[in-house]
Amino acid sequence: MSPHAPRKGAHVARSPRLEDVALAAGVSRQTVSNVINSPDVVRAATRERVSRAIADLGYRPHAAARSLRTRRSSTIAIHLDPYAGGISGVVLDRFIHALTDLAGERAMRVLLYTARDHDEELVRLRELLDGGEADAVVLTGTSHGDPRTLWLADRQTPFVAFGRPWGEDDRHAWVDVDGAAGTRKATQWALAHAGPDVAFLGWPSGSGTGDDREAGWRATAPNAHALRLVSEESVRSARAVVADALDAGAPLDALVCASDSLAVGAHLAAVAAGRADLPIVGFDNTPAAEAIGLSSIEQRPEQVASAALDLLLGTRGAADGSDAPSHVLVEPELVLR
Amino acid sequence: MSPHAPRKGAHVARSPRLEDVALAAGVSRQTVSNVINSPDVVRAATRERVSRAIADLGYRPHAAARSLRTRRSSTIAIHLDPYAGGISGVVLDRFIHALTDLAGERAMRVLLYTARDHDEELVRLRELLDGGEADAVVLTGTSHGDPRTLWLADRQTPFVAFGRPWGEDDRHAWVDVDGAAGTRKATQWALAHAGPDVAFLGWPSGSGTGDDREAGWRATAPNAHALRLVSEESVRSARAVVADALDAGAPLDALVCASDSLAVGAHLAAVAAGRADLPIVGFDNTPAAEAIGLSSIEQRPEQVASAALDLLLGTRGAADGSDAPSHVLVEPELVLR
Repeated sequence: MSPHAPRKGAHVARSPRLEDVALAAGVSRQTVSNVINSPDVVRAATRERVSRAIADLGYRPHAAARSLRTRRSSTIAIHLDPYAGGISGVVLDRFIHALTDLAGERAMRVLLYTARDHDEELVRLRELLDGGEADAVVLTGTSHGDPRTLWLADRQTPFVAFGRPWGEDDRHAWVDVDGAAGTRKATQWALAHAGPDVAFLGWPSGSGTGDDREAGWRATAPNAHALRLVSEESVRSARAVVADALDAGAPLDALVCASDSLAVGAHLAAVAAGRADLPIVGFDNTPAAEAIGLSSIEQRPEQVASAALDLLLGTRGAADGSDAPSHVLVEPELVLR
Repeated sequence: MSPHAPRKGAHVARSPRLEDVALAAGVSRQTVSNVINSPDVVRAATRERVSRAIADLGYRPHAAARSLRTRRSSTIAIHLDPYAGGISGVVLDRFIHALTDLAGERAMRVLLYTARDHDEELVRLRELLDGGEADAVVLTGTSHGDPRTLWLADRQTPFVAFGRPWGEDDRHAWVDVDGAAGTRKATQWALAHAGPDVAFLGWPSGSGTGDDREAGWRATAPNAHALRLVSEESVRSARAVVADALDAGAPLDALVCASDSLAVGAHLAAVAAGRADLPIVGFDNTPAAEAIGLSSIEQRPEQVASAALDLLLGTRGAADGSDAPSHVLVEPELVLR
């Protein structure tokens, strides 16, 4: 119940207050309150400015969300995007399968909703929570200064995020997969079984997830000049990038990839270049990788779902007994084929 | 509002009554009532016998389920199994994505639940419906004499099935994909572009879905001795079966498959046998087929979800204005690669 301590990098020494946020964002106190309590009545640009000030200052409207421990039965709302196709969408679906299964064992339900953006999601969440249709939330795709986490924390609605916020505003509970640990395992295996030239095929820099996966490879590959290939997230693009690298005669003993889509593209390029035996490791362990016989890093979404429910139910709290939100990093495993 | 007409093959000329069912099943009227209203209190063997008698006689406890037309907001419950892996699970997930998206546009929610078998599912549905947590149901995996459809019809709970019951008890609303139409298109394409020897790779006979997909090929293939290969639903098994057929020198211009798992296995066998150019068509148009570049039959789960919601909402009824349940067969499309 103690006030939130200022974080490293925060701009005030004492616990930040509402007026600090108003001052930093150049708005009235009422506007800050609106952003927290009725974000849909505030213009997007203003809301964005206030949200960033709240995140930068480490302002925390209320104590940690109450746990669901005392409740008999609860309904967990989770956002589900329209199906986007592609190879890796199965990871979120597996998470939802597992969440539903584990929630059912605890007499909890899973309620799905859609929203085109954060604004619409806040409107939808308000309907679900005010109407008593849901009383806990699992967020996906959180980001630095995310208006949803601020709003849920202020309402004292129990919630947990699947995915790190990749910023400093990680005062809420979250579960994520340790991508760097996954690519570290893959790189170690490739170094031991293929050779020193273990390259990485990833996405353009700048995404939290992609940079994390690259970091595990970079920290493990002994060769400072190890090849880093960049492709957008598609089989076709990855195939072209790897075909070019093989054409150019780049030294390549094995390839660690940021996704199974990239790995499938790399595999097609290797086969076409007469290097069907090139060891390639994907990420996500999807049915596509399994069908082709590619090794891949398994995210274990069932473990993620279990940890998320533990956090919501308060059965996995901070060791010191405080009500501080907890963070869980699930260690992925390398599936060899 | 007219009583349900006896169906072809029914054992009574007038509309069957509760006592007809009791007589046919050799149980008391109370037991029949229990099977309909409290199935979980009846022993499984008895319930099965009564359910079959209800189906065989065409007994219909009440008028058609009321439509949801007049309701302002509703929650649709749908069963979600634990993730089973494999290539084709994505079809049901795509359906749930689409159902959630389209339901959201109509201010409806989608609530997920799990159950290990029909017994547990009835208990779970009763909790959800009695507790007001859900007021409509989308069933999957229905079968002849399904206790869930009888129970829901008796409660007058609006429901629709994704999948035909494959029996005579199709008095409830359902949406399904016309598998035979899909394999017909694939076979026609193969005959026009590959040659007369278009083989079919399917599952062992006896499943409604598998037999339906085979029927479309059989009705279209001009060669009475066209090759029919049988495999269980796995990449490995399909690969072995097709490898044997190629080894044996079977005449084979193209291969139409009952699933993408079978198609991927066939593709791997063809590549290994130096016949990488063998035209192969899968079924389900999964990311795995897309990644490898295989043609496949697309089930259009978004169309299925749209039709299911129309039936629940009563916006797609019988042409004669009666309240008879409607059945929708969605025409799949052939995606060539």
